[in-house]
Order: sequence, then structure tokens, then C-alpha cells
Amino acid sequence: MDPLHDPSTRGFNSDNCAGVHPEILAAIEVANGGHQPSYGGDVYTARLTEVFRAHFGERAEAYPVFNGTGANVTGLQAMTERWSGVICAESAHINIDEGGAPERVAGLKLLPVPATDGKLTPALIDRQAHGWGDEHHAQPRVVSITQSTELGTVYTPGEIAAICAHAHDLGMTVHVDGTRLANAAAALDLPFRAFTTDVGVDVLSFGGTKNGLLYGEAIVVLTPEAAGGLTYLRKSAMQLSSKMRFVSAQFIALLEGDLWLRNARHSNAMATRLHAAVQGLPGVSVRRVPQANAVFARIDKGVAERLAKRFRFETWDGETGEVRWVCSFDTTEADVDGFAAVLADEARA
Amino acid sequence: MDPLHDPSTRGFNSDNCAGVHPEILAAIEVANGGHQPSYGGDVYTARLTEVFRAHFGERAEAYPVFNGTGANVTGLQAMTERWSGVICAESAHINIDEGGAPERVAGLKLLPVPATDGKLTPALIDRQAHGWGDEHHAQPRVVSITQSTELGTVYTPGEIAAICAHAHDLGMTVHVDGTRLANAAAALDLPFRAFTTDVGVDVLSFGGTKNGLLYGEAIVVLTPEAAGGLTYLRKSAMQLSSKMRFVSAQFIALLEGDLWLRNARHSNAMATRLHAAVQGLPGVSVRRVPQANAVFARIDKGVAERLAKRFRFETWDGETGEVRWVCSFDTTEADVDGFAAVLADEARA
Amino acid sequence: MDPLHDPSTRGFNSDNCAGVHPEILAAIEVANGGHQPSYGGDVYTARLTEVFRAHFGERAEAYPVFNGTGANVTGLQAMTERWSGVICAESAHINIDEGGAPERVAGLKLLPVPATDGKLTPALIDRQAHGWGDEHHAQPRVVSITQSTELGTVYTPGEIAAICAHAHDLGMTVHVDGTRLANAAAALDLPFRAFTTDVGVDVLSFGGTKNGLLYGEAIVVLTPEAAGGLTYLRKSAMQLSSKMRFVSAQFIALLEGDLWLRNARHSNAMATRLHAAVQGLPGVSVRRVPQANAVFARIDKGVAERLAKRFRFETWDGETGEVRWVCSFDTTEADVDGFAAVLADEARA
Amino acid sequence: MDPLHDPSTRGFNSDNCAGVHPEILAAIEVANGGHQPSYGGDVYTARLTEVFRAHFGERAEAYPVFNGTGANVTGLQAMTERWSGVICAESAHINIDEGGAPERVAGLKLLPVPATDGKLTPALIDRQAHGWGDEHHAQPRVVSITQSTELGTVYTPGEIAAICAHAHDLGMTVHVDGTRLANAAAALDLPFRAFTTDVGVDVLSFGGTKNGLLYGEAIVVLTPEAAGGLTYLRKSAMQLSSKMRFVSAQFIALLEGDLWLRNARHSNAMATRLHAAVQGLPGVSVRRVPQANAVFARIDKGVAERLAKRFRFETWDGETGEVRWVCSFDTTEADVDGFAAVLADEARA
Repeated sequence: MDPLHDPSTRGFNSDNCAGVHPEILAAIEVANGGHQPSYGGDVYTARLTEVFRAHFGERAEAYPVFNGTGANVTGLQAMTERWSGVICAESAHINIDEGGAPERVAGLKLLPVPATDGKLTPALIDRQAHGWGDEHHAQPRVVSITQSTELGTVYTPGEIAAICAHAHDLGMTVHVDGTRLANAAAALDLPFRAFTTDVGVDVLSFGGTKNGLLYGEAIVVLTPEAAGGLTYLRKSAMQLSSKMRFVSAQFIALLEGDLWLRNARHSNAMATRLHAAVQGLPGVSVRRVPQANAVFARIDKGVAERLAKRFRFETWDGETGEVRWVCSFDTTEADVDGFAAVLADEARA
Repeated sequence: MDPLHDPSTRGFNSDNCAGVHPEILAAIEVANGGHQPSYGGDVYTARLTEVFRAHFGERAEAYPVFNGTGANVTGLQAMTERWSGVICAESAHINIDEGGAPERVAGLKLLPVPATDGKLTPALIDRQAHGWGDEHHAQPRVVSITQSTELGTVYTPGEIAAICAHAHDLGMTVHVDGTRLANAAAALDLPFRAFTTDVGVDVLSFGGTKNGLLYGEAIVVLTPEAAGGLTYLRKSAMQLSSKMRFVSAQFIALLEGDLWLRNARHSNAMATRLHAAVQGLPGVSVRRVPQANAVFARIDKGVAERLAKRFRFETWDGETGEVRWVCSFDTTEADVDGFAAVLADEARA
Repeated sequence: MDPLHDPSTRGFNSDNCAGVHPEILAAIEVANGGHQPSYGGDVYTARLTEVFRAHFGERAEAYPVFNGTGANVTGLQAMTERWSGVICAESAHINIDEGGAPERVAGLKLLPVPATDGKLTPALIDRQAHGWGDEHHAQPRVVSITQSTELGTVYTPGEIAAICAHAHDLGMTVHVDGTRLANAAAALDLPFRAFTTDVGVDVLSFGGTKNGLLYGEAIVVLTPEAAGGLTYLRKSAMQLSSKMRFVSAQFIALLEGDLWLRNARHSNAMATRLHAAVQGLPGVSVRRVPQANAVFARIDKGVAERLAKRFRFETWDGETGEVRWVCSFDTTEADVDGFAAVLADEARA
Repeated sequence: MDPLHDPSTRGFNSDNCAGVHPEILAAIEVANGGHQPSYGGDVYTARLTEVFRAHFGERAEAYPVFNGTGANVTGLQAMTERWSGVICAESAHINIDEGGAPERVAGLKLLPVPATDGKLTPALIDRQAHGWGDEHHAQPRVVSITQSTELGTVYTPGEIAAICAHAHDLGMTVHVDGTRLANAAAALDLPFRAFTTDVGVDVLSFGGTKNGLLYGEAIVVLTPEAAGGLTYLRKSAMQLSSKMRFVSAQFIALLEGDLWLRNARHSNAMATRLHAAVQGLPGVSVRRVPQANAVFARIDKGVAERLAKRFRFETWDGETGEVRWVCSFDTTEADVDGFAAVLADEARA
């Protein structure tokens, strides 16, 4: 096949616009050749359990799936009964960006709460944590948070501990949408378990794709009692990969060494660099100091339009003029500096 | 990542136990580097439409998805109303091997018919084609057939034409589960469209994984009027790949040249060779001359148990002692001959 | 409101074409007046538990619902996980006549078995009782039988005991669609519990509507461990009546005395009378001696058409000319004799 | 059956705690006797269409169902695709009080908006009316409002006209949850069509139970193009009554004359009387002048507890001490005066 694209072009639209890290591709090649049992009976998937346990503790169980929607919706099903509700931030990806999959595929009732900076708190949870025993009310069963959040913020271990303690006190369990869990770990400079297993998280979606994988996420169960039927649910949710050895090999390559951390630290650093370069520019209002790999800013619409002709990025809120710039494992300093320079020119124009 | 497996070991369990064809891996590398729009906005996915149209005609629309279950269930949703039924063979993968996904995810009512050799006919369809207008009866809306079938048989173009004509006469449309469509094309020595587009098929699942891809199938709509909402359904069915350029690049590598045909011809030829080698062995009863890449045989259970210690294969029917041997793109003549030799020894033991 | 129909006209179409027994209407009037807590918090629903326990044993729990589809689908959900399958006869109402509700509303995978006379046996169950632990296979969890069956036959207590023992041995539970449970009890001349609770049935749908109620069925749980979440499931399945006191009052009137038995015995007796009157008529082939309140016969199509001009009844199988004649609590001897006389005339014409 | 309750006791808990209006019971008796086709093939259901057309215009189609949840969820399914979203007030019954049925049974994604007094406006709708064409976003397809609202308020015809015009401009349709539509008509002193058909409403749930019926609601389609498949959806949603003649007869009795209006006017008048009697009492803060049949007030918790020992009513918001008092068709002036007198005593104690 001939190349159809220019591999030197990068933008700030999303960390899933990047390609695959070379070490990941290499792992796929290593896992290739010969036959291996399909559907997870292979040796790479067997090894994967050990790899995840090294990060998340001895009780962890990992279930590779295809994508983030699949990880979230399948994991949440395993944590709920047919009559359950899931408390989440109004800005949560599961509420806003899954095309209704939680409702459509899993019949879940989401119980959203407006949350500043995308982060829930025990007090915010209480706004939806009621109605147990009332058959007219979807029974709150799970609190789902995102780490790092859709708004680029990061929960501290203490914040998550407080959420878990509160949820558990109320008889609920805690799910983490960890599409960008590695970015949070890099931002906190902590091992994964310090803000998941050790503070009470029960189940999480571990994100691989945005951290350099070709494809693949994993449902990681930290509290086995909190999730049931995952092998069956993964299959009926159409998330069971036949050649699973390749998903598992990617995750091994990502997590056995420090590739996950190198990639996350780099993308976070690029966002910090971008923030430094653009704050203070006329007409550019950065909303908050970036904690992970995204910068949110309000800029003049004319500036945005001219800028968009040269770089891809997302308009986050068309009314307020807020835009989102995301950095990836392959974003270079030159990418950031070049973008900032053009923005500076446009902003001053 | 270090290798964990022996790449020289192959078996006859399933064509999804094989790995990835080198030309496919090469295409993924070509498509790597730089940023591309996610979720199918990339240049490879744009090209993919042309590639599929070259095979299936100018009206064809292709929607890459992750796996076969996803392709079947999502495609069937696009062809049905919430109150529809789908007529299929009792042995159809959608009825037997999807873990209930058609019912669970799509709410589909399957209307199965026992079918010799896994093939439907107009007369068999009529056993479930009734009850239109009766609200107590799931309304038959789609006939779904598998090509090549789960039992290793292949429909002729005339057989499919008769099914399509009959279904259309009754106001139904026709879906093909084409997990092994390439094997059927190779067996028939015909282009794809000769037994799909040209004989009236409306929507199909085009299989890539079992034909040498790393991952990826495609829903191919041949009759645009027969399917609606696929972009939305693919997302909510959790089958939308973010880094879709890589699924598309694989399909381009498979279908732009003749890789699909080389792979399919080879696996079919290996099954033919295997059949020739084992028929007539004492205690081995081959059920039918293989038409695609699978051999079904009844063998003595003691023989099967001893054989299974050296080669992986599937017990198809524990009661009758029927087993299934599947050949892949990477099955060698030596693999076949070695397997047959061991079977011959065991059978004569 | 003025009457729009002739209350002296009766047919043999279905026992749900009859109206309401006067004692039932009287009970509704007794329960009327004043306010009572809605959704089952009323005194009549409280009493209902005692009434059902008198018939089904001290562990029985009754959940009134609106209709038979609701009772079956809601009860089966309470007995299953999201990945479960339900083994049933191919002719079961849940498979044939619920408009796909089990699949659509509950995501259930039905595992049908062809069954002579509509009755399952342990051997027939075994045709679908396999695949536990295989994630590709909907996990068989419940055996659902109908008593009396859709074909007018009645299971003996021994037959049900054998089914329950077999299902329980396999780790499954047993559901009875008891739309016409009273007809079975009358036919067997046994109390309900002799062929339900005492032989191992776990959950049943108790039919009221076809036994003389205005509306209302009940999910009756006999084995509390076999069903979970029914209050929540009934609500989300849209089967929770707000003025439930009136459903409960009807059931009390039906079951506290012997009204259920009088009605069932009468309709059964009318079917027996009808069978006696028509067997041996030229061109009339009665398929079996009626065990409950329905007669199935094959008659000449011309005769059927002429007969249908004067009496309503159902064509059961258009191809074979089989028709179904159902008797109700209000069918009179004169109705039967008049119908048989016309049939005799037509048959001899 | 013997009476188990005291028919002279009434409270203010909900209008579904009342029983059945005597004229409704009389209609059921009139429709009784003889056989009628089941599932809506009867003469009363045929007449019902005319009755609804007299109120709602010549294009109206009515589909009787069992309850309000069933009417709302089934009607909304008929208006939506599998990938649709429904914009509603956060306080809407479909969002708060259906036990998750819209999500569970219909896979609907609700798009809630906080709304003062429970009423949507075009500007509020715009907060969720976006994302068309974006497959990651459930596609806004229907605006659902409640008339009279869950908070006892009533939309004016002009307000509904503005909502309909706005929704239609955006390619959406409008659904009305009319559980208490009669109370709104009485409050507005307008025929139903003046604030439904004539201002652009497409589909509504017409409430019977809270207006004096034994059971029964109706899905009324005003714009036939806006709803599809209702006969099939009603069956698979388990809302198809077999003895439908009795649901239809009740609606005929309610709507052919002015029973609906008498009942609604009376319950509204009782709420107005109650409001007049309690406003100004110390410690009682009536939130707004009642527009329909409910009074919302904040009262001291001690007072509420003592009052609740003698009268049943609902605590609407445990935190603020808000309570809800609902009047019914059978609430008497003496009931209101007695309640107000006790409240006055307690409030002054």
C-alpha cells in the first residue's frame, strides 16, 4: 500500500489523531507468527494479568477490549443491576460523547451532576445519591469519575479517596474512566495504584489508545466483588477480540517498562509548554493551568478561524469561543512553538 | 517486549488463531506517523470507499468496525425496525456464537430454521416468513445467510439470487455474514459482486480478520435504501475506532491488490489437501468434500483425544464425535501432511 | 355510555374474548371508594400475599402486573443475568406470540426446542442445555414451560417434577407460564401447589385474565433465591399499576374462594363437550383429546370458511387447515351444541 | 370479597390514591357480557377513535395502553430512531420517576435541562439542542414537555406554540406527557386541541387514571408522520391489553360527555380552596398559586410530622421541607377544610 498522507503533519485536535508508538508496533511484530489460541487463551494475555497486577495490586483482573466506549459501558454493566443508576459529572464522556451507548446497549440510567472543572465531590454526589428502595427511581449504584478529566483536570489521591469512602458508605462502588489515566499518573508523579487501588477505586477503564497504542483499552477490576460476568458481558457487548494476543502484547509493551510514563510525561510537558507560550497573548484567555495534556482557552472567533486553517483543533464551546488544544506522545517542541507563534501573530493582527 | 510464544507452531483450530499477514503489518506502518483525523475522517478511510466500490459496485458504502459480532449486529440493526425479526439458519453464527449479542444489544428476534449444510433456501425461509401485520409476531424483515457457511459450504450465485428474489418479493432484505467471504470467492472463482451485488444482496459483513488482518471487519451496504443510521449505530454499538486509519489501511492492503485472493485460495487449497489426505483412513468419516477452508469429520473419540495432545482443533459435536479442522493463510503443506500422518498413525493404532 | 355490542354473542376464538365474571366486578366495587396508597401499598395487596400463600405455600411472594407478556418477561428477567438464555418449547408463547418482547425489553436469548404437544422433557431440554462457561454461548439459566400448554395439553406433576429435578441438577431454575394454570389444576383435579411448589417450580406467571378477570396477572415467586429485584424490574418494565388495589381485589375474589376452579372446570368441561360433539364428523380430524379448554382440529378449508362466517375462531395453521376452538368461563352448553350442529351441517354439506 | 378498607378516608398524597368514578365503573359493566375480539378489535375501541378525534382533530389516532410509564415510553419510541435523544425538563416524570424505563426499555438518551416551575422554553431547549450530525452525540429528536407539569404549573397555548415552532424549526417533534392533561384544560378553560393539535404538538400521552379511570392511558398521535410502528411497539412494550374493550369503554365514558372536565375542574377547585385556606398560616410558605390540582408548600418539619399522622401526603424535598398536597376528583370541601384546620392548629401550636 502506498502512503496517502504526510507523516510530518501534526495538530492539536485530539490525542487519538496521533499514530502508534514504534515500540508498540514492534511488540505486535514480536507477537506475530504461528498460531495462538484466540479470544484471550494466548500466552500474551496470560502475561498481561501479571503486568497489570504489578501496577494495580494482586487482586487486579484485566479484560482487554477494543475501545473506550466499550471499556466504560462493559465495565459499568458488570458493576450494576438492570435497575441501577450511575452518578457522573454532567461533562463526563459517558454522558456526553458515547452516542447514548450506556443507555442503548446497557440500559443504564445516568444521574449527572454539574461539576466545575469536571470533578465530582462527595457533596456533588449527594445531589443524586438518594431514592434507594424507591422503585420509581433508578437505584444509584456506581459513581463514575474520569481521571484525568474531560476538562484536563486531575483528581488528587485524597479527592478520590474521599469519593470512594463516601460512595462505599452509601453502598455504592466507584468506577474510573481512565482514558488518560497515564497522564494523571504523570501529572501526580505517582504510581497508578496510589490514586486507584490504594484509595478505594473498584473498577477502571485503562486507556491505551491515547497513550500510543494502535488500538485497545482494558477493563481493570480492582475489587473482584464489585464486578460480575465480565467474560460474558465483553462478548455480548461485542468487545471480544479474536486475535487478542495483539492487544495484550501492546499493553505489555506499554506497561512492562516505562513507555506509558514517557509518553504521558511528554504530552503533559508539551501542554505545559503550550500554556506558557500562549498565556498573556492579547485576546487569549487560558481557563486554567493545564494539569494533564490539554489546554483550554477562549480566543477571539476570528483568530480561531484563521488559526484553524493551519492547525486542527476542537471548538469546545461555540458560544463562548472556548477551544481545546491537546498534546500527544509525538507532539514536538517545534510543533508547540510553531503553533504558539502563529497564534501570537494572529492574536496581535 | 520479548517473545513469549513459538512462532513455528500452527494448528487447525480456527483461522483466527493465525497472526497477521506481513503485507498487512507493512500497511499499518505506512499509515503511521503524523496526525490524521480520528473516527474515519482520515485519507485512508476516504480511499477505502473507492476500494470497496471497485469490488462491489458504485453504490457500495463501507463502514469499518472492530469485529465480526460488531459487523453483524450493527449491520442488522441498520436494516431493521425495533419490532423486526431476522430469519437465519439454526447453525448461523449470529444464532449460536454471538453470546446473545443480537438480542442483548439490538433487541433483535432471530427466527431460526434448521438447515442442512448450513444453507437456507426459499422453501426453508418460508417456514419463518409469515405473520406480517400481526403485532404479536416479530415482523420478518431480513434474511441473513453466511457465505461461506459455518459448516464450510458455499452458496452458488444462483442459490443466493433465488434467496434474494424470494426475500425481496416478500418485502424483506438480505444480509450476508461474510466472515469468510473471500474463501467463498476463491472457491467459486468469481469476483465478490457476482454473488453479492449482482444477485441482490443488500448488506454484508466483510471479514478481514480471518483473511489475514490484525483486526477489522467492514459493514458494506450495497443497497443504500436497505440500511439507515449506520454512522450513529456504529458509535452506539461501540464499534467506532478512533484510529480508524489503521483499519482502513489494512483493508486497502488486502483488497487493492490480490492479497485477499491469495490468502483465501491458499487456505482453501490446504483444506482440500487435508481432505484428500485423510479420507479413507479407518475410523475417519469426512462429512463432505470441503468447499472452503474447513474440513468436518467424525473420528473415534480415543483418536481425537490422542490427536488433540499434539494439534489444536475444535470438537464440533461432542455427541457424534464430529471435529472441525480449519486451514489459514499461513497453513503450510508440511503442516497438513504432518497432521494427516499423525492422524493416520493414530487411526490405525 | 351506551352499549355498542350484543352481549349474547359468544365465539370460540380465545378465552380473552370473554368479558369479566360478575363476582370480579363486584370485588372491584367493594374495593372502590376512599383513598388507598398507590403502587401496592394498599390493604388489598397486603392481603393478596396471604391468599397466594394459601395456594402456593408460605414462601410464595406475589407481584401483580398488567398482562401475561409483562408477567413472563418481568419474571424471567428476575431469574436471569444479562448473559442468560432461556430454554423453552418452540411453540411457547414467549417464543411465538410476544412480538419479540423477551428479546427487545429484556435482552433474553431464547433457546427453543421443537416439542410434540408443546411439552418439554429432560431429554428435549438437553438439546439446548450446554455451553456453560463458553462466553460465545448465551448461558442456559432457566427452563420455561407452559401449563396448560399453548396446544391445550397438560403436564402431569411427575412430568414437571422430572423437568425441575433435571434443571436444578444442571444449575438452572424453572419458570412456568401459567396463563391457564387454573385450567391445568382443574384438569388434574389437584391443588396448584401439587404441580408447582411441591415439585420444584421456582417462579410462575399466574394467569387471571383468561380465568375471568377484567385485567391482571401475577408473578409468583416460589423460591425466593431464584428471583431478584422484582419490585424494580416491574416498575422499569412498565408493569406497575398505580391503582393496584383493584388488581389485588380481583385476585382475592378469584382465589379466596373457588371462583378460579368453577371457571376453569366449566371451560374445560365445555371443551370436552365440544370434542365429543365433533369427533367423528366427516372431514373433521380432532388432533387429540382436549386436556384443558381448547380443541384443536383439522377441518376442510371450505368448511372452515363457511363456519367462520357465523362463529369466530382461530386458524392455527393455514397450511394444514388446523383450527383452534377455545372455551371460556361463560361458554354455555347451548353455545357448544349450536356450534357443533352448524359444523355438522357444514361438514356433511 | 369483603371490604378491607374504610371508603370514607381520603388524603392528599396523589390523585392515583383515589378510586374509580362511578360513571366509569358503570361503563365497564355496560361493555361487559358476551364476546368481543381481543387486543383492540372490538367495537368500543373502534368508537374510541371517533371520540378522540372529536377532541383532537380528524387526524388523531389513539392507542390505549395500561399506564403512564407505558404511554410515555412507547410513544417516545414511536417518535425516535435508535440513536435519538429526548430533550426534557430535569424535573420531568420520564427523567425522575420512571425507574429508568426510558433508558432500559427503549434505549433512549434523555437530555435534561433544569427548568424553573418545570416548564421548558425555546431558550432552555437550546441548551441541549445541538450536535446533529455528530455520531458521538445522541441526536436530539424530540422535545417532551408535561402538561400540567410535575410542579403543578400549566403551559399556556402560546408557550406550547413557541416550543413547537422552535422544535419543528430544528427538525424535532414535540411530545406531551399529559398524565394530567384534563387538569390543564380545566385550568386554561380551553378545549384540548387549543393547546395541543392547534399549536403543533405531535404526540401525547393522555392520562385517564388520575382523572377517575380504573386503569388506562392513551397514546394519541396528532401528526401521523411523527410516529411509526405503534401497534408493534405497544405489543413488544408489553402494553397491549387483551380485553381492550374495557379500557376503551372507560375512555368513552370519560370523554364522550364532560366527565373529564367535571373531574378536572373539581380537583383544581379543591386545590385552589386549599391554597386559600393555608396561605398566610404561620410557618407555611406556599410556593406558588396552584394552577392545576396540586399545592406545593414549605412547612416546618415538626408540623409536617404531626400532620402526617392524620393525613397522607408526599414530602417533595426532604432538605427544604417542601411538601405536596394533591386533590382528586373525589376530594370534598370538607376534606380540604378539615385538613386546613388541622394544619392551622399545628402551625400555631
